Amino acid sequence: MAKLWQGSGGGLHPLVEAYTVGEDGVHWDSREDFRLDGEVLLPFDLKASAAHATMLQKIGVLTKEELDTLKKALKEIEELWKKGDFKVTRSQEDGHTAIEQYITEKYGEVGKKIHTGRSRNDQSMTMIRLYSLEQLRLIRQLASDLATAAEARVSDFNAVAMPGYTHMQRAMPTTVGTWLGSFAQGWRDSTKMLDGAIGVLDQNPLGSAAGFGINGLALDRAETAKLLGFQTVQSNPMYCGLSRGMFENVALQAMSLAMVLSSRFATDMMMFTQQETLFLALPDNFVTGSSIMPQKKNYDLFEIMRANGKVFGSLQMQIQETIVGLGSGYHRDLQCTKKAFVEACELGTSTLALLKEVIPALQVREEKLKAAMTEDLYVTDEVYQLVAKGKAFREAYGEAKEAFFKRKAQQEAEASKKPRV
Amino acid sequence: MAKLWQGSGGGLHPLVEAYTVGEDGVHWDSREDFRLDGEVLLPFDLKASAAHATMLQKIGVLTKEELDTLKKALKEIEELWKKGDFKVTRSQEDGHTAIEQYITEKYGEVGKKIHTGRSRNDQSMTMIRLYSLEQLRLIRQLASDLATAAEARVSDFNAVAMPGYTHMQRAMPTTVGTWLGSFAQGWRDSTKMLDGAIGVLDQNPLGSAAGFGINGLALDRAETAKLLGFQTVQSNPMYCGLSRGMFENVALQAMSLAMVLSSRFATDMMMFTQQETLFLALPDNFVTGSSIMPQKKNYDLFEIMRANGKVFGSLQMQIQETIVGLGSGYHRDLQCTKKAFVEACELGTSTLALLKEVIPALQVREEKLKAAMTEDLYVTDEVYQLVAKGKAFREAYGEAKEAFFKRKAQQEAEASKKPRV
Amino acid sequence: MAKLWQGSGGGLHPLVEAYTVGEDGVHWDSREDFRLDGEVLLPFDLKASAAHATMLQKIGVLTKEELDTLKKALKEIEELWKKGDFKVTRSQEDGHTAIEQYITEKYGEVGKKIHTGRSRNDQSMTMIRLYSLEQLRLIRQLASDLATAAEARVSDFNAVAMPGYTHMQRAMPTTVGTWLGSFAQGWRDSTKMLDGAIGVLDQNPLGSAAGFGINGLALDRAETAKLLGFQTVQSNPMYCGLSRGMFENVALQAMSLAMVLSSRFATDMMMFTQQETLFLALPDNFVTGSSIMPQKKNYDLFEIMRANGKVFGSLQMQIQETIVGLGSGYHRDLQCTKKAFVEACELGTSTLALLKEVIPALQVREEKLKAAMTEDLYVTDEVYQLVAKGKAFREAYGEAKEAFFKRKAQQEAEASKKPRV
Amino acid sequence: MAKLWQGSGGGLHPLVEAYTVGEDGVHWDSREDFRLDGEVLLPFDLKASAAHATMLQKIGVLTKEELDTLKKALKEIEELWKKGDFKVTRSQEDGHTAIEQYITEKYGEVGKKIHTGRSRNDQSMTMIRLYSLEQLRLIRQLASDLATAAEARVSDFNAVAMPGYTHMQRAMPTTVGTWLGSFAQGWRDSTKMLDGAIGVLDQNPLGSAAGFGINGLALDRAETAKLLGFQTVQSNPMYCGLSRGMFENVALQAMSLAMVLSSRFATDMMMFTQQETLFLALPDNFVTGSSIMPQKKNYDLFEIMRANGKVFGSLQMQIQETIVGLGSGYHRDLQCTKKAFVEACELGTSTLALLKEVIPALQVREEKLKAAMTEDLYVTDEVYQLVAKGKAFREAYGEAKEAFFKRKAQQEAEASKKPRV
Repeated sequence: MAKLWQGSGGGLHPLVEAYTVGEDGVHWDSREDFRLDGEVLLPFDLKASAAHATMLQKIGVLTKEELDTLKKALKEIEELWKKGDFKVTRSQEDGHTAIEQYITEKYGEVGKKIHTGRSRNDQSMTMIRLYSLEQLRLIRQLASDLATAAEARVSDFNAVAMPGYTHMQRAMPTTVGTWLGSFAQGWRDSTKMLDGAIGVLDQNPLGSAAGFGINGLALDRAETAKLLGFQTVQSNPMYCGLSRGMFENVALQAMSLAMVLSSRFATDMMMFTQQETLFLALPDNFVTGSSIMPQKKNYDLFEIMRANGKVFGSLQMQIQETIVGLGSGYHRDLQCTKKAFVEACELGTSTLALLKEVIPALQVREEKLKAAMTEDLYVTDEVYQLVAKGKAFREAYGEAKEAFFKRKAQQEAEASKKPRV
Repeated sequence: MAKLWQGSGGGLHPLVEAYTVGEDGVHWDSREDFRLDGEVLLPFDLKASAAHATMLQKIGVLTKEELDTLKKALKEIEELWKKGDFKVTRSQEDGHTAIEQYITEKYGEVGKKIHTGRSRNDQSMTMIRLYSLEQLRLIRQLASDLATAAEARVSDFNAVAMPGYTHMQRAMPTTVGTWLGSFAQGWRDSTKMLDGAIGVLDQNPLGSAAGFGINGLALDRAETAKLLGFQTVQSNPMYCGLSRGMFENVALQAMSLAMVLSSRFATDMMMFTQQETLFLALPDNFVTGSSIMPQKKNYDLFEIMRANGKVFGSLQMQIQETIVGLGSGYHRDLQCTKKAFVEACELGTSTLALLKEVIPALQVREEKLKAAMTEDLYVTDEVYQLVAKGKAFREAYGEAKEAFFKRKAQQEAEASKKPRV
Repeated sequence: MAKLWQGSGGGLHPLVEAYTVGEDGVHWDSREDFRLDGEVLLPFDLKASAAHATMLQKIGVLTKEELDTLKKALKEIEELWKKGDFKVTRSQEDGHTAIEQYITEKYGEVGKKIHTGRSRNDQSMTMIRLYSLEQLRLIRQLASDLATAAEARVSDFNAVAMPGYTHMQRAMPTTVGTWLGSFAQGWRDSTKMLDGAIGVLDQNPLGSAAGFGINGLALDRAETAKLLGFQTVQSNPMYCGLSRGMFENVALQAMSLAMVLSSRFATDMMMFTQQETLFLALPDNFVTGSSIMPQKKNYDLFEIMRANGKVFGSLQMQIQETIVGLGSGYHRDLQCTKKAFVEACELGTSTLALLKEVIPALQVREEKLKAAMTEDLYVTDEVYQLVAKGKAFREAYGEAKEAFFKRKAQQEAEASKKPRV
Repeated sequence: MAKLWQGSGGGLHPLVEAYTVGEDGVHWDSREDFRLDGEVLLPFDLKASAAHATMLQKIGVLTKEELDTLKKALKEIEELWKKGDFKVTRSQEDGHTAIEQYITEKYGEVGKKIHTGRSRNDQSMTMIRLYSLEQLRLIRQLASDLATAAEARVSDFNAVAMPGYTHMQRAMPTTVGTWLGSFAQGWRDSTKMLDGAIGVLDQNPLGSAAGFGINGLALDRAETAKLLGFQTVQSNPMYCGLSRGMFENVALQAMSLAMVLSSRFATDMMMFTQQETLFLALPDNFVTGSSIMPQKKNYDLFEIMRANGKVFGSLQMQIQETIVGLGSGYHRDLQCTKKAFVEACELGTSTLALLKEVIPALQVREEKLKAAMTEDLYVTDEVYQLVAKGKAFREAYGEAKEAFFKRKAQQEAEASKKPRV
């Protein structure tokens, strides 16, 4: 089927089509825009299209009957999509084209009117904006729930002593509750950045058309903002254009704190579930095995989570790099931000959702922890006992240090005298 | 001079010292922590040290006389620093050591008490936190001022027509005012993310010591929070440790929108000051020349600004990568986030400060703009004239397209008939 | 179906399976390992499995009949795969499992022997190594062909004068041939890095098992190296483990020069096909249109190519970040490098393959170029005419500069005297 | 002092100068080009300038006397520089200007001739090219030496058993020798990429001037290539321009394998020197202490090394991002690649040089290793004992797994019967 911009003439060079849209018949395809639209973003396009049509009727471009037909058609597409029966094909390029073609084929003339007063630029941007806000709110909810889940276990673990590490060496005593509580605080704080991002994104770009508005048509942008639940209209049409990709970047920056924390939590879990420590554990249905070593229990989920923190970071950077050198006005480069954005959102939500299951299942191995609370962890306490007796800190430090190494040397000397078993 | 943790024994392997602190006598040094402390961060350390001492006196660790001596000493160091006479040397490792050694050498015993109840971890973190908040507030002010400066010129330029570009091709008419206003909106919106970050960072980490607090000493952390102007105490000491580097990352994420915008503005300026367009210009004291081509006028400032958007991004990523795989607890890796953070803040503030000068100096070349408002920019208007007459959009589009290409073919045919001059 | 490492017991937590392998029924999935294996990598696994079985028969683990059966089964799978009829399902986790299960179900006992003497670690690594080498050789060929294609047009264009730009301003005269030749040289040079990478990767990892070899089984690793066409055996089994992901990183570093060049070529093409210059053009089947502006002709392929240079860079970095903090030994994190690697290879090959079509189709607009060869481009020539007459360079520069600006001021004065039309 | 391109008129806006060159009197400066030239790159500029002058005399632009004077002056500057007495100031912008001004002030007229036939573009590029090649060859030597140093210790450690880890869990037996040998192989292989990069960079860019050569002056580029030790002339002048930054990127890509390996080695060392394992150790002069915990011994050097792998990666990416979107021809953006490149080279050489000291000092704690060789490491061996008896692998795996978990359950049951002490 013809693309929206095509006339009667011959088609695109097949390699150009493959390169800019996606290629039929290749085994793996990095340019899968049509699939992304079809599988993830289409419902947001339908929602925006319905609001657009409602507004067009309000300003007299569509009749009441035309609007009813369009609403019916959009509803049909949504039902088909839910059942997995509405597919966007490569030759259609994107979901916008697939929708318009469906309506025109089935309902005729009215399908040719739905694109009045908009461009694919603002149509696509509105679809992604609605998706972005939904994701930001979902991640905000998950981060908040996760903080709550972790806080709920802090009191369980506040009395359980645990070695505190610095430089990956045992340093001073702490508790499992303090450790878990530190992550809880972080996930809680991450909602502040998410609120900032929601504040930036919550503006209606629909009606900006190709970034220059529409002359000769009095679009009611406040109306579509109301229908779509946006707080305000993003009034300057060139700012709408400028914000494509850039607002997705803002959204990922705001999600990044929760992801970095989760990745660091995963690294801690990897260390605390090693045979050498075994302070913590998860039930068997959280761990995996090996195809060659029958005895293995592996915490793959934390390895994937640790890696996902880095993958998320590179997706963030992918979007930022793609936009940072671009002038204003639409560039096709911006399309390349869509896939990275959806992938990053999926990484974010799936990571937090999994952690919400992990936290309540966390098991503490008290014997292992008790055995690890060795004498050296308390040397700093000795320093402060001397300070309490009036020693200057720097001198107390020197004294405690000397005493510690003297004791240690004695212990080693005695140990070497004992007969080996 | 000895390091804070050194006893009487022999020193570090010189390559280890060079690698972890910085090497004397090399020509260029990527590990310049001591220089960074000495040149930028020291005043924040002094401020935090004064608050810490005041609190120590309040809880009875220091006498009134000792506190007065310490305050006097810290004031002295500040005065020396302002004159460029307080240097941190490589062998001291950092500013913290330089301060303690200055006091101990000049005032004796009391210098050995100032480190009571803290570790270099929370000392350093407090210093950087204070610096970060100052930078965030400064960048917020600059972004807001810049938005105001740009808004002030929008009305000047709102009547000046300008070609709007998509895909770097002339697309539809816009105005210089709309173009400049789109960036103004962006800089304005960037303050929302900065507010989010300030909300995250505005917590007092002082008193968390090495990340595990201090047993046997009743530090009054609310007091130092009040003295240093923090909104709250960051109560969980392990969360303080966890936030080192991670909060710097948050700060840069929040600054990133203003930087990305500035870089994109620079790219637009490069295109609009080319000989091929010359829509815009700056006075001669903003442009540079060439060492070989006498006729050149170059807009180097925008090339540097365009590049700085990318450099800023890589510094962001440098910090995020450094922390993302780390477990909780202090790791020396975190020290490597300091230089990138200070450099990124400097890039941010200097970029926005320069743009504040650029905007009022911006000159519009109206003749060049007028000449560029060619017929093709108005074809979309024709579409909507047909829509206004009742044509379905998709048909109006087809009709206007056909008419345009017919006119164009005629013009070319006529042009080819004319004799070449 | 059961995973290779599963016993009789209960399965994985569904969120853990979804997170580590991929989730059934979600609309978009960032963890699509099974799909990647099934669609791209499977033939390389089959090839390696056949070589492994041949070797097992040689060392007496398999009988001749068993080997024949396995070869037959592997051939069958390959035929099914070519027709798109061999699918790897989510529950199988990966292609390795899918292959073993197919054989065991259809041919019984012998399927349980094919994994003798290997782990999924070396199986997967060998599969990816074979794929990597194929891609490196393909990209090397494409880069070389592209250089040849560009060189072939240099002589066409060597006489066509063109303004040379610095700082995006016209600077000195050059020719279209010199411009195109500069990229030809770059693509030619890029083969040197690719040769370096091929030299690193061309080692057989099969037989390293989980990174520790196999005790009690005399694998003939030289035999599988010969059968698979590797130059040498990668003898240290822990080095095999260490090279997973790291060698993919090496491959992408080596591809990066050709990609960076292509992205920069695309940026030049965007500028030289703007209405403001229009020095160059491509036939209509290379350009696209707009859904709202009927008159537009856009060079989307170069926008995508410009962006792909950045996307490629972020995929490079994704892999490097994922591995850089990891200790030796297998980590599940390494699995996350697979998708980024395949995507980056696809971007590389599709970009170079498209450019091979673009270069021969490139059209030069001589009139536009002639009009752009303005007087200012030749001021440096005047400097050297003065140098030829014996002037010191720095004085000649000053003299030519003064003369140029005097002439320019005169022209402007005269232009302002003319009546406006 | 005036810049090379400045005439008599007024100077640059101070913020523009600060932004593009560096600001006097600020405390920290991210734009320190003049310092970089003055401290690191100047000797390479002097070498290239001497070769350029020699060639100018050969083609008749300079007299024998003028050449002698220039050589004398350049030698003087080199001597001053070695003593730290030749400074490049901010107002001079760069080392090129400082050199020309020194000569002109001291030797008059002849100083105005040294820039004949070159631009700052090719002058700067030649300086950096010479530096890059020196660094590539140095890193190649260090990587090779390091591989040799590690290989030398492999035989010491080949008999020392060590647990092999996968997923950070004990997996199968290996030896310290195999572990160390795996890194040795990697460092050895890294020289192949370095050779590829040297092959790309070893071309003379001098004589390309601003990227368009010089009309009216017959520069002998083969002569300067010979004098500077380049293998060939980089003949296309626009390719010279195009290679600025891009070749630095190539150099870093080639260095990256050695850096990634070093960072991963550091991570292993962090884990193997924890109190929980303590398999390996270094003498006291390699470790550091804590300012608050007297008992600590920290392996800071490995933390810095681990972080430096990430910092190196971000510097790589900084350069690649800066150039990837740029068209051909000189852009001031390219200047921003200089600092990142020098820093990355310094990180590379200092890391490998330090590891050369670490490897011979490495201590093995045999008792700790012996204690860690627990039963579970040998379960895979049991599988292969069953395979040797004719069991199909998949069945042997199942049988060994069942036996292992049965034994483990018995041991735990017995342990729980023992009275707690």
